[in-house]
Amino acid sequence: MGHVLALCGGVGGAKLAFGLTRILAPSDLTIAVNVGDDFEHLGLCISPDIDTVVYTLADLSDRQRGWGLAGETWQFMETLRRLGGEGWFQLGDRDLAMHVERTRRLRAGETLSTVTRALSARLGVDHPIVPVSNDPVRTMLDCETGCLTFQEYFVREKCEPAVARIDYQGANRARLAPDVAAALARADLSAIVICTSNPYLSIAPMLAIPALHDGLAARRVPSVAVSPLVGGRAIKGPTTKLMRELGVSPTNATIAEYYAGLIDGLLIDTTDEADLTSLAAGGLSCGATRTVMENDEHRVALANDTLALARKIAAARAAAA
Amino acid sequence: MGHVLALCGGVGGAKLAFGLTRILAPSDLTIAVNVGDDFEHLGLCISPDIDTVVYTLADLSDRQRGWGLAGETWQFMETLRRLGGEGWFQLGDRDLAMHVERTRRLRAGETLSTVTRALSARLGVDHPIVPVSNDPVRTMLDCETGCLTFQEYFVREKCEPAVARIDYQGANRARLAPDVAAALARADLSAIVICTSNPYLSIAPMLAIPALHDGLAARRVPSVAVSPLVGGRAIKGPTTKLMRELGVSPTNATIAEYYAGLIDGLLIDTTDEADLTSLAAGGLSCGATRTVMENDEHRVALANDTLALARKIAAARAAAA
Repeated sequence: MGHVLALCGGVGGAKLAFGLTRILAPSDLTIAVNVGDDFEHLGLCISPDIDTVVYTLADLSDRQRGWGLAGETWQFMETLRRLGGEGWFQLGDRDLAMHVERTRRLRAGETLSTVTRALSARLGVDHPIVPVSNDPVRTMLDCETGCLTFQEYFVREKCEPAVARIDYQGANRARLAPDVAAALARADLSAIVICTSNPYLSIAPMLAIPALHDGLAARRVPSVAVSPLVGGRAIKGPTTKLMRELGVSPTNATIAEYYAGLIDGLLIDTTDEADLTSLAAGGLSCGATRTVMENDEHRVALANDTLALARKIAAARAAAA
Repeated sequence: MGHVLALCGGVGGAKLAFGLTRILAPSDLTIAVNVGDDFEHLGLCISPDIDTVVYTLADLSDRQRGWGLAGETWQFMETLRRLGGEGWFQLGDRDLAMHVERTRRLRAGETLSTVTRALSARLGVDHPIVPVSNDPVRTMLDCETGCLTFQEYFVREKCEPAVARIDYQGANRARLAPDVAAALARADLSAIVICTSNPYLSIAPMLAIPALHDGLAARRVPSVAVSPLVGGRAIKGPTTKLMRELGVSPTNATIAEYYAGLIDGLLIDTTDEADLTSLAAGGLSCGATRTVMENDEHRVALANDTLALARKIAAARAAAA
C-alpha cells in the first residue's frame, strides 16, 4: 500500500507499532517516536519512549510488568540506593547498557537517529525506529507544586500533581530527524498513523514541532488516529486525569477536536460505538474495533484495521475525484 | 602508636590495608591510594584501585575471583556486548553503581576525595580511604605495540606487550589530596607504610608526585615497605615480568634500591630470609615473615609485623639519640 509514517509514544503506541511491523516491510514503514520524555539522569541520556518501542519491536519487553526488559535484574539500583544515589527512576541492569552505550555514542558526536538505528538493529529490529527529532524537545508540566519534567511528573510524582499547562520546550526550534522528514516527503507515502498514545504527553510533543504539524496539515494522504480511550478511560497512564485537569472531557469527541485538521479518520473502541455518529457528523471517517491489545493477535488486528481505515479513506477520495 | 600513613595500590595492597584497619582506629590511619590506573571508559570515571580498597575494607570483595564484588552479576556486560559496545573491561551490575554515582558527583564538581569518602562511608568503611591526588595522574606504558594506558595494558592486553618505559602522566603537576598532605604533616605521624603493591605500577605513580616523594624523603618517622616478591616472584600480576623487561632482576635487593632514600625498613617473606643479611648491610632495618595473605588472620598478622618493624626502627633511633 506504499509507505506508512507512524507517530508513536511509549507503551500503548509501541504495541500498535509492533502490529504494523508484522504487516509492513521495513522499507514500507517509518516509526517516528516521541522524544519529549527524554532526559538526562545520573549523567546518562535516557530516551524512554524510544527504548520502549525498540524493546517492544525486538520482542524483548516485559509484557507482564508493562515496561522495561523481560528477565531484567536490579542489582545496579540496589547498590545505587545503598550508595545514596537517586533511586526514583528504575534502571535495570540490562536496560542500563542501552543508556550507557547511547550516551557514549551521543557524546562522541553521533545523532540520536543514528544511535537508535544502530542499537535497535543490534537487537534484531529491522524496521526503522526514528526519534521525531535529533534536537531536544522536553515535555514540561506546569503543576501546582512547580514545573516538572515528564519523568519527574510521571515516575517520581506518580502523576499525582494536578497539571495546569503543558509546555513542549524546544519544539518550536526543533527540526525533524532526516528520516522523518524524508518519510513525510515520499512520493509513495500512503498513510499517516497516529498510534494509541496519550495525545497530550506522547503525540503533542511531536506535533509541536512546526515541520511535523505543517507537514500533517498539508498532507495529501489519509491520516488516521487510534483513540487511546475506551469507555471514557485510558487503558493505562494518566490520560483521563490529565484531560480533566486541562478542562476537557475524556471523550473521543475531545480527541477528534484535539487532532482537528491533522487527521481524516479516527478508530475507536467498540465500547464507544455510540460515538461514531457524532464523529462522522464532524466530517471524520471513523470505525470501531477492539483497541485493547492483550496479545500479538490483537496488535496485528488493530494495525490491520487502522491501515484498512486509511485505505477506505483513500478509496473514497479516489471515487470522489 | 600515633598516626600511620599507608600507600596502597590495588589487590595486594588492599589486603594489608585491611589488616591495618583491624589494628588502628579510623583516626589513626590514612590510606592513600594510587590513582594512576584511573580512566574514563564508556563515559564513566573508573578508579580501580580505590574501588578495590573500598570493597576490601567493606569486606564486600570477591575473595575467590580476587577482584570486584562478591555476588556480582553481569547482565549489563552481556547486554552491552549485544549492543556492540566495548566489552573488554568487565563492569559488574553492582560495581557499575559505584562508577555511575562517582561520575555524577565528580561532574557536579565534587573532588575524588570527597566522593570516595562519601561512597566508602555508605558501604560501612570508617577508615579514611583517600586518593593520593585529586588531580589526574595516568600510568602510561610505552610498549613495543605503542603507548597504552594502564587498563589497556593490564586488562585488554593482559600484560602481554613488553614494556620499555613507564610514564606517570600528570604526576609532576599533581598536588596531594588535602587529607594525604595533612597526614604527612601531622605532629603525631608515627610511621609510613608502603603496602605490598607493585612498586612500578601501583606505588611509583604516587611517588612520582613531587610533594609525596619529597615528603617521604624528608620524613622524621620510620618508613617501612612490604616487599611484593616471594621467592623472586609476585603472588599476582605482572611485577616480575615487568621488572625483567625494565632490565632489573626481580629481587628484594632491587625493591630496596627502588625505594632507596624513601624507606628505612623492608619486610620480606620468610622464603627469602637469605636476603636479610645483604639488605641489612645496605643500611635497611629488615624482617622476614609470612607476606602471603590468604585470610583475615594473615592480613592482620602482616599488618602487625609491619607496624612492629616501624616501632623497632623508632625505638632504635630513640636509643641512639
